[in-house]
Order: sequence, then structure tokens, then C-alpha cells
Amino acid sequence: MVRTATTPGSATGDRARRHGYGQLMTVPSYLLNPIGRVTSPLRDADQAPKQGIEGGPEVWLDFDAEVTAGLADVESGDELVVLTWLHLAQRDVLSVHPRGDQHRPERGVFSTRSPHRPNPIGLHRVTVIEVAPGRLRVAPLEAIDGTPILDVKPVRAHTPDD
Amino acid sequence: MVRTATTPGSATGDRARRHGYGQLMTVPSYLLNPIGRVTSPLRDADQAPKQGIEGGPEVWLDFDAEVTAGLADVESGDELVVLTWLHLAQRDVLSVHPRGDQHRPERGVFSTRSPHRPNPIGLHRVTVIEVAPGRLRVAPLEAIDGTPILDVKPVRAHTPDD
Repeated sequence: MVRTATTPGSATGDRARRHGYGQLMTVPSYLLNPIGRVTSPLRDADQAPKQGIEGGPEVWLDFDAEVTAGLADVESGDELVVLTWLHLAQRDVLSVHPRGDQHRPERGVFSTRSPHRPNPIGLHRVTVIEVAPGRLRVAPLEAIDGTPILDVKPVRAHTPDD
Repeated sequence: MVRTATTPGSATGDRARRHGYGQLMTVPSYLLNPIGRVTSPLRDADQAPKQGIEGGPEVWLDFDAEVTAGLADVESGDELVVLTWLHLAQRDVLSVHPRGDQHRPERGVFSTRSPHRPNPIGLHRVTVIEVAPGRLRVAPLEAIDGTPILDVKPVRAHTPDD
């Protein structure tokens, strides 16, 4: 699903011009459709730990009815990577003070895990605690209540990571 | 950046109706703007290994000029997670034969790493081999030439995975 925009003044049109493509050439973008939402006791970003491993709570992942068939074979005890859309993040940020600490020198955002970045996709490694119809209870996950879920993948069996 | 659609017949409008929201309520979607492209010797999906760890090649990550400031502090030897948009994937798939093997029983897509899934975001753990202006040479990465890059994150220092 490719969206393009050439409207003068649109973000994508501006982007095309900055690339020297002119008005007629377009830069494709892609449309994400969330598959569910995080139901969490964390109500705002100030409450959220910086990373799940630092104490993210148990949450429910609530999936849209149209995708629940994709949850077949997910079992309690599974190790998953949950991808979320950090919908409160700023997308025009390219350098940050790590962990929001103004005393630390700024770094390029791609060498940090800051939520503020051009495509604010969160990665959360979790364990499945409970499987219920259309829902998974998992921990730890530091995203706030209502955060859109984009995808769920198993951690690979033959490697400890991603 | 929230996009909504209520146009009858649009994918999002259909989705809203299936959720019982009616025509006036909308389900938000989000617009991804790729930050660059993978330059790879892999020219089509048939050539690509199923996972980078099974023999993905060295590739160049070529970043758009407008985001290269975000690459400051990425260094040779760094371990990164690269997020890509698997632009050739089918998005209406909820169950698959693992690894495309028709002899293996179908599984729910969220318990597999299949590229075919509602939001086909690829996760690739790589090592940086070379840093050049606006580019990073990394390996292994199994995406085909031209695959859009969405994000780059460091592997967390205090845990081997994510």
C-alpha cells in the first residue's frame, strides 16, 4: 500500500523537494494499520520506565477481532517481540540527550533507544503469561495504556536475540 | 501523524464497519516515511535466505540526506537492530506454512517470522562493518535490494537481545 503526495506544502512533497526530486517526483510512504492496543496500568509517559527490563509491568495485549486467527499457536511461556507504535513520540528529532538526561551529551538518535525518532516503532521483548480469547497477558512492557500494537513475532529459537 | 478514512469501500472504512464503529467512527492508521534503502546483491525474494543468520550478505544501508544527522555516534563494530518495511509481502495473511514448507502444518502468523503479515516490518540484527557519509555497511541482512529502511536502534548494552 503505497501512498504518495505531491501537494505543495505537504510533508512528503517538501521531502521530495529537499531531495531535489522537484514537484512531480514522489517519495513513497506506507500505511500502518494497528492490530490491537496495549491495556496497561501506565497512564502517561512520565510513569513509564525507560525500558521494559527496568521494571515494565504486566499488560494485556488486546487484538482486533480481524487478526485473532493469527494468534493460533501462541502459548503461555512463549518469548515474543512485540512491536508498537509510540504514538506520543516526536518524529522530527534526530539527536537526543540519552535517557532524557540534559547532563549527558547529545547523541544521534539512531545510536539511542529514544522513543523520539522519525518512525517511532517500539520493540519490547516479553514473556507470555496467559492466553485468553483475543488477548495475551505479557510482561514486562513499558508502553502506556492505549499504545497501538503493530506486530508480534516469536524470538528466534536458534538465537537468543531480536 | 494520524490518517483516518471513512470513504465507503476504503480498507480503513471497511475495517471500521467490521468493528461495528459505523461510518462516522474511524480507526486511526499511521504513515511510515522510510529513512533510506538497503543496497544489496540480493535481487529477488527467491534468492534471499529466510533469516540473516542463515547467510545474509553484507549490504549498504543508504540513508536519506534529511536523517543522516541521526547517524552521529554509530561506529564500526556496533551491534544494531535494523527495521525494514518488507514491501513485497502480502498483508492479508494470518496463517502460514512455516518457512514456506507445504509439508509443515499451518501456524498462526504471529507465532512465525514469516514476512507475510498485517504490518510487514522486518527485524535484522547486524554488525556495523564500515561507516561512510550517509551510509553504513552492515552484515548479515537478508532483505532484497531496494527494501525501505524504517529505523535503526542499538542492541541494548545491558541485555544481549531485544
